[in-house]
Amino acid sequence: MSFRLKMNRSAKKTDSNIVLALDLPSDQPQSLLSRSIRILEEAHSYVCGVKINRQLVLPLGLFNGVQKILSIAQDLELPTIMDCKINDVGHTNRTIAEYYYKAGFDAVTANPFVGWEQGLQPVFEVAKQMRRGVILLVYMSHKAAEEGYGQTIQNPKTEQLSPQYLTFAEKALSWNADGAVVGATYPEKIKEVYRILGENVPIYSPGVGVQGGGVEAPIKAGARYLIVGRTITLSENPAETVKRVRDAAKRCLK
Amino acid sequence: MSFRLKMNRSAKKTDSNIVLALDLPSDQPQSLLSRSIRILEEAHSYVCGVKINRQLVLPLGLFNGVQKILSIAQDLELPTIMDCKINDVGHTNRTIAEYYYKAGFDAVTANPFVGWEQGLQPVFEVAKQMRRGVILLVYMSHKAAEEGYGQTIQNPKTEQLSPQYLTFAEKALSWNADGAVVGATYPEKIKEVYRILGENVPIYSPGVGVQGGGVEAPIKAGARYLIVGRTITLSENPAETVKRVRDAAKRCLK
Repeated sequence: MSFRLKMNRSAKKTDSNIVLALDLPSDQPQSLLSRSIRILEEAHSYVCGVKINRQLVLPLGLFNGVQKILSIAQDLELPTIMDCKINDVGHTNRTIAEYYYKAGFDAVTANPFVGWEQGLQPVFEVAKQMRRGVILLVYMSHKAAEEGYGQTIQNPKTEQLSPQYLTFAEKALSWNADGAVVGATYPEKIKEVYRILGENVPIYSPGVGVQGGGVEAPIKAGARYLIVGRTITLSENPAETVKRVRDAAKRCLK
Repeated sequence: MSFRLKMNRSAKKTDSNIVLALDLPSDQPQSLLSRSIRILEEAHSYVCGVKINRQLVLPLGLFNGVQKILSIAQDLELPTIMDCKINDVGHTNRTIAEYYYKAGFDAVTANPFVGWEQGLQPVFEVAKQMRRGVILLVYMSHKAAEEGYGQTIQNPKTEQLSPQYLTFAEKALSWNADGAVVGATYPEKIKEVYRILGENVPIYSPGVGVQGGGVEAPIKAGARYLIVGRTITLSENPAETVKRVRDAAKRCLK
């Protein structure tokens, strides 16, 4: 089953479009693994997928701690995304993707800024071989996203000017990516990207909650999945919080 | 001592401007640690620093295997660079840098494409607090570097067009980076970047050897350090190979 289909089925089954970002802060490293597992087990009924970042990979190790979380997510039938934002040269990109896929991740994120040849081509190749997913960054959720993702670039062929993120959306389409990341903090960008991608490449929207993004605006603009992290992981009652966000999102999806 | 000074002193002491990239292929994971240590011990007299990438971090773990290599590098008085190419949102970027610095790395690499506010500012802040280095990517060594690093962008204030990599070189200068990466495969770009950076920000040049870059062209164009990986690590006699590259580089530096 392709990653895209896996996400789709999981969203239907759980009746949720929320991806849980297990990005726990680093202040208590000794309890990172147990806290991550507890939050996942408490919140799992209300999420359709799990995203992990270097907040867990670096202190816990990929094949030690993180693999334990992946195995629990697999038991819960939740697809997993490694948010590694691949942006190196080809042979290193391939190695990074291979290790994450081998550890059990269903998808990785990657930065289209590095381009295709000797860039992301090897990542898409290994994804195809191993039947996993690649999600491309199109517009990130932070303030300075404007400096890079929002800059105006000149098309080398037509010499026409256009925003960087729209060229990234076009790459997501032509490279047949399994998802495109656009920050929930920029719903107007989601709308523009959705006009290019339609239902061909689902939009994943991070930055909901602590980073300032809402629930309604990104979904109305065309986001398929909301990525929610600290709002849930730092909450006193993760299950209650994620249920509230999931229910709010459900109302918008109708 | 600042990272920049540490590199400078090490280059003088070892009479070498070669940074050893310990990017071993993933085909024999069980012997990765021992092979890495053997190559480092054999080659150390002819290199001024060591660069590590996800080829080692993902299979070995940061605080298990990689820290053992860092501790050997420290005993050999060689500065260490984590080539993590940071390109996430600010709070994650800070966490990534903190973990690598805590493990013992003297510097990290980062992608200026993510911008300053809530982007790389937190990385430079934590580098300052912990007295470590930040090296920015300005033009990478692979073919598709042209798609991103080589694209033409419009200055948002002046509306003038300029190459992306020159704006990155200007960021390296104004953000007071400790180094700038420009691929050895593009000596003409090194020359242009050197015109902006001069002796203020040293240029690190990867892609020498297997990726097609030479030794003479990047140095003559202004590269201060050459990053050499597979040419050494895949060689039958790493010490002999690195000595040969070091000697060739020395002749060009005169």
